[in-house]
Amino acid sequence: MVVYGRNAVREALRGRRRVHRIWAFEGAGGEVPGAGARMAEGGAGEPPVSVVGREELARLCGSTDHQGIACEVEAYPYVDALGLLGEEQALVIALDQVQDPQNLGAVCRSAECAGVAGLVVPERRSAGITPSVCRASAGAVEHLAVARVRNLADFLALAKQAGAWVYGAEAGAPTHYTEPDYRGRVVLVLGAEGSGLRPRVRAACDQLVAVPLRGRIGSLNVSAAAAVLVYEALRKRALDKSP
Amino acid sequence: MVVYGRNAVREALRGRRRVHRIWAFEGAGGEVPGAGARMAEGGAGEPPVSVVGREELARLCGSTDHQGIACEVEAYPYVDALGLLGEEQALVIALDQVQDPQNLGAVCRSAECAGVAGLVVPERRSAGITPSVCRASAGAVEHLAVARVRNLADFLALAKQAGAWVYGAEAGAPTHYTEPDYRGRVVLVLGAEGSGLRPRVRAACDQLVAVPLRGRIGSLNVSAAAAVLVYEALRKRALDKSP
Repeated sequence: MVVYGRNAVREALRGRRRVHRIWAFEGAGGEVPGAGARMAEGGAGEPPVSVVGREELARLCGSTDHQGIACEVEAYPYVDALGLLGEEQALVIALDQVQDPQNLGAVCRSAECAGVAGLVVPERRSAGITPSVCRASAGAVEHLAVARVRNLADFLALAKQAGAWVYGAEAGAPTHYTEPDYRGRVVLVLGAEGSGLRPRVRAACDQLVAVPLRGRIGSLNVSAAAAVLVYEALRKRALDKSP
Repeated sequence: MVVYGRNAVREALRGRRRVHRIWAFEGAGGEVPGAGARMAEGGAGEPPVSVVGREELARLCGSTDHQGIACEVEAYPYVDALGLLGEEQALVIALDQVQDPQNLGAVCRSAECAGVAGLVVPERRSAGITPSVCRASAGAVEHLAVARVRNLADFLALAKQAGAWVYGAEAGAPTHYTEPDYRGRVVLVLGAEGSGLRPRVRAACDQLVAVPLRGRIGSLNVSAAAAVLVYEALRKRALDKSP
């Protein structure tokens, strides 16, 4: 798998995956620790760094959105979904059919910043952790635990058996998103823009919550809604710990 | 100005700007009220609808990201920045040098959804409301008040004279973003990713607040941070109103 973009390559180099090699424009590695200095020394060391031209880099990446640097890494290491709920205070985000790589990447970034236990996406009709998701997440996927499940509704049922409380985000739901206390094992479920949660996924939620809309546009972007929800959950949990 | 994409055209048609004409692929207007039905009837009425081919539409838009529909609208109607602070509870977002149209569009969308009084951006070294910002905002810019100012620090000084409290977002600031009460006239200032707030803008803030980062990535996307901050401000204000 080829990962491209300055942030994505930098985080790959300090993440879990083995990086096999780096390709960069002359001088482009400067912002990436472990690449820039070694380029000046001829690119020897591990992983090796090769200087390439613009067209060659675009060909290797299958994209022109590479910011002058890319690397070849091992396949993305998905984790086990139920394993994410091991901790008593595990906070997990689940996405139902979010197909846009920009949106998935943006959710990954906020999720990693918020320090969640992980992210769950369905195997089908959802973006996986592709190079464009790595890029859109600013490399956050390298430090985030991501699980793929065959059936999201079935996963939510198992999560409930494992003691998790499942909140689904739905515009117009009667419960304001600030009402729940978000304690214990929690799964926050968000659907694709436009279509929202599928009926079986919706039915698998313990409670539906709404982020209020006060304008004329019909919905928040899924990554904005995810950021608002996950930080509200953190806020509520911090209240619990205060004396 | 040519606006493209289904949401952007739909919102332009129900927004403030005069729409001069619509161009669409055969059948592409279906999701846009006011365009689809009239296309079937030959495109007469106001604004006129013309059926165009893929290459022609891409040429008109200067982009292939048009989803089969575009329209020509009058120039974007920027508003007066200080006028945004007229109401006693006015909540305004100011962006310092956010140059990426995707990020600016995403902030516009969350800002419109949250019902803020408006958005302030500097004239220079910042994206304006371009067609790609309209697209990225899902059309939210049509319903949002946006002002451009020559100098953001000067605007913040005037905003303070007008009774506003100015909060700047900065990773690592000592004040947790949930601490302020966000009452009265408020300006929330966010900087570009990477560079953050410029020194004069930072110095013009009454208080710097931080959204906590619990992962390994160094910063939230500016649109995620904006969504978290603005919804926290709304939450605090709602507390005030509860009995």
